[in-house]
Amino acid sequence: MIAELICVGTELLMGQITNTNARFISEHLAPSGIDLYYQTVIGDNSERLKDMILTSLSRSDSVILTGGLGPTDDDLTKETAAEVFDYELVFFDSEWDKIVSYFARSGRTPTENNRKQAMFPKSSIILPNPNGTAPGCIMEKKGKSIILLPGPPRELQPMFANYVIPYLMRATDHKLFSKEVRIFGIGESQVTEKLDDLIKCQSNPTIASYALTGELYLRITAKCTSESEGERIIAPIMKTIRNRLGDVIYSENGSSLAEVCHNALLERNETVAVAESCTGGLLASAFVDLAGSSDYFIEGAVTYSNDAKVRRLGVSQKTLNTVGPVSEQCAKEMAEGLLQRAGTTYALATTGIAGPGGGTQETPVGTVYVSFASHQKTVVKRLNLNGDRNRIRHVAVLNILDIFRRNLCT
Amino acid sequence: MIAELICVGTELLMGQITNTNARFISEHLAPSGIDLYYQTVIGDNSERLKDMILTSLSRSDSVILTGGLGPTDDDLTKETAAEVFDYELVFFDSEWDKIVSYFARSGRTPTENNRKQAMFPKSSIILPNPNGTAPGCIMEKKGKSIILLPGPPRELQPMFANYVIPYLMRATDHKLFSKEVRIFGIGESQVTEKLDDLIKCQSNPTIASYALTGELYLRITAKCTSESEGERIIAPIMKTIRNRLGDVIYSENGSSLAEVCHNALLERNETVAVAESCTGGLLASAFVDLAGSSDYFIEGAVTYSNDAKVRRLGVSQKTLNTVGPVSEQCAKEMAEGLLQRAGTTYALATTGIAGPGGGTQETPVGTVYVSFASHQKTVVKRLNLNGDRNRIRHVAVLNILDIFRRNLCT
Repeated sequence: MIAELICVGTELLMGQITNTNARFISEHLAPSGIDLYYQTVIGDNSERLKDMILTSLSRSDSVILTGGLGPTDDDLTKETAAEVFDYELVFFDSEWDKIVSYFARSGRTPTENNRKQAMFPKSSIILPNPNGTAPGCIMEKKGKSIILLPGPPRELQPMFANYVIPYLMRATDHKLFSKEVRIFGIGESQVTEKLDDLIKCQSNPTIASYALTGELYLRITAKCTSESEGERIIAPIMKTIRNRLGDVIYSENGSSLAEVCHNALLERNETVAVAESCTGGLLASAFVDLAGSSDYFIEGAVTYSNDAKVRRLGVSQKTLNTVGPVSEQCAKEMAEGLLQRAGTTYALATTGIAGPGGGTQETPVGTVYVSFASHQKTVVKRLNLNGDRNRIRHVAVLNILDIFRRNLCT
Repeated sequence: MIAELICVGTELLMGQITNTNARFISEHLAPSGIDLYYQTVIGDNSERLKDMILTSLSRSDSVILTGGLGPTDDDLTKETAAEVFDYELVFFDSEWDKIVSYFARSGRTPTENNRKQAMFPKSSIILPNPNGTAPGCIMEKKGKSIILLPGPPRELQPMFANYVIPYLMRATDHKLFSKEVRIFGIGESQVTEKLDDLIKCQSNPTIASYALTGELYLRITAKCTSESEGERIIAPIMKTIRNRLGDVIYSENGSSLAEVCHNALLERNETVAVAESCTGGLLASAFVDLAGSSDYFIEGAVTYSNDAKVRRLGVSQKTLNTVGPVSEQCAKEMAEGLLQRAGTTYALATTGIAGPGGGTQETPVGTVYVSFASHQKTVVKRLNLNGDRNRIRHVAVLNILDIFRRNLCT
């Protein structure tokens, strides 16, 4: 079963919005065992769209189109698709009634323009849209299908999950089962070198590596008929990878560093507080992003000024005057001071120069000290990071989370 | 000048990452007057990639490819592009030296695999990559060009802006000039209703509205030969929009709410501190994200627990026991308490229930109190927000920033 995706919309071609629909659809097709070799974005132009649909039908079983189902003259996806299959559009009273009620729920009435949203080829499968006025539809001809979905994600997503996936899966006989192995503290080329032989002779499962900002992950994917068969196919290679990479692997189920720490804290019934200088709220936010963090996250102190470091954390004026705020000693005092004041099991701290200004010869932009304190010990690490302000802040947060999970999980 | 974009990467087809490069490139091509009719995503497959490049070259002047320039065997974009043009790849000592120094800066040495990143067709234009090991390149043949860019955004973006845009613009005769009018506190349908006549009879300039999470913006675009002509074409319609929408417009140059506050604080030489409960670091991060914020951002307190609210901000135990932490009174005490303790010109505070748990009949999930305090007055507002945890936190931050900019700018 080969599907293909065409996203219609001049706003995508102009870069005014990010194509999140392509990602959503693709990430739901993959585990269903449906192959996807092309995603195309094209503007609201009938001629080009018609040619594109014909090309896609020539190489794929099912062509999924998103966008262009609205009430305006610009919206021509359905009309163009019907033309390709040589189907006539007819007015569906039942669909029109639903559109009228949709408007009525917010005290409005549809305009004359909306009538075209109730028109479909007679033989098509109409896909309900509880979140908007544009129903989707599936048109079939000679074993091929064209699937039309509305552009807004909150209309498209439930329609795709509830109707399109089951429709497409009727024709597939296998699934893809994946494990996402997440890694921190080693470069992509080092990882691929260590796994070179596995990557070279891969067939089932396959192994692919992906770099994220400051970290990377491996996706190991098995072609299988059930999840348990998938697990069985992946198990031996997973064991080899674990042996070769060791503790740079921090999760095998796609959990982020923050999620690994979050789960460990909940399980151990322990608490944490964080003190941040250059990462300014990013570290606190990494925890507070996660539902349930109020059980262990006691407080965060964004002590950006020297004064706040002294007042909030008890960093000594002497440290600030001698070695300065971007120093091993200051990071240590920040974490230890906060640990005492917040009364938590652990405290974490960051202090550094995220740039673009503020660097010196000895402490250039990208110098960050991160610190972990428990009641047993304090760990401080100096980082020399590169990239822009936001990358430096992001990677500093990853580093302190990595130190944290290593000290939490042992 | 017609360009076309092909993004190469199985991780995009699998939906593992969002294609932010397509948006970045598209939104930079549009104002340069370069037409783009197709964006395609394709996997790491040499045969399909070769066919796709040939199709693209048949309908466009310039084909931009992203991704597949890494050191592994999977990375075959450059090899395939050279094959299409029938060019041989040769080893560039000068590029290899740069790769070796790039590794050396972080105390590493390149592997044998990296050598292929120093190979290019003899006649190509090599595009430097200060942020990674993969240089980009432009190959030309018979008036057509293929432009190869690395996949990671932080490597691609500066390369595209510094080298590719100037290269492509040699051939264009008009520009697009845009103004981005940003709006908070009014719905998209209300805005389009107020501007209905302008939107209906638009030609040059054009007006388009876009909804973001919790806010929206208008893009007004003029076709022109120079920036000053663009300004002149846009000025009268801009004046009408300003008159009709009034102070829900918070910027006319695309600045975010945080940037508007940031600039006002720097200009007025004033300072701020923030106390956050449910937004947990997001508000602090909105400021610290911006270079130069150390001049005015004194401290942030992520007081997630009641205990931290008392200890750090001086919220009264009585308030917590009677009306509770999610209350007008608590928000007021948080902002006023922090203002005293941090000694800043202003203090901002948030407290609320981001969910999914923790809601009650009177204070359901989505109830957030935001508060602004100066030495003259305190403003508290109750918000009733909907959506998931992250949307609620994000929109709460927008609301307090909007209150802040209104009180700063008057």
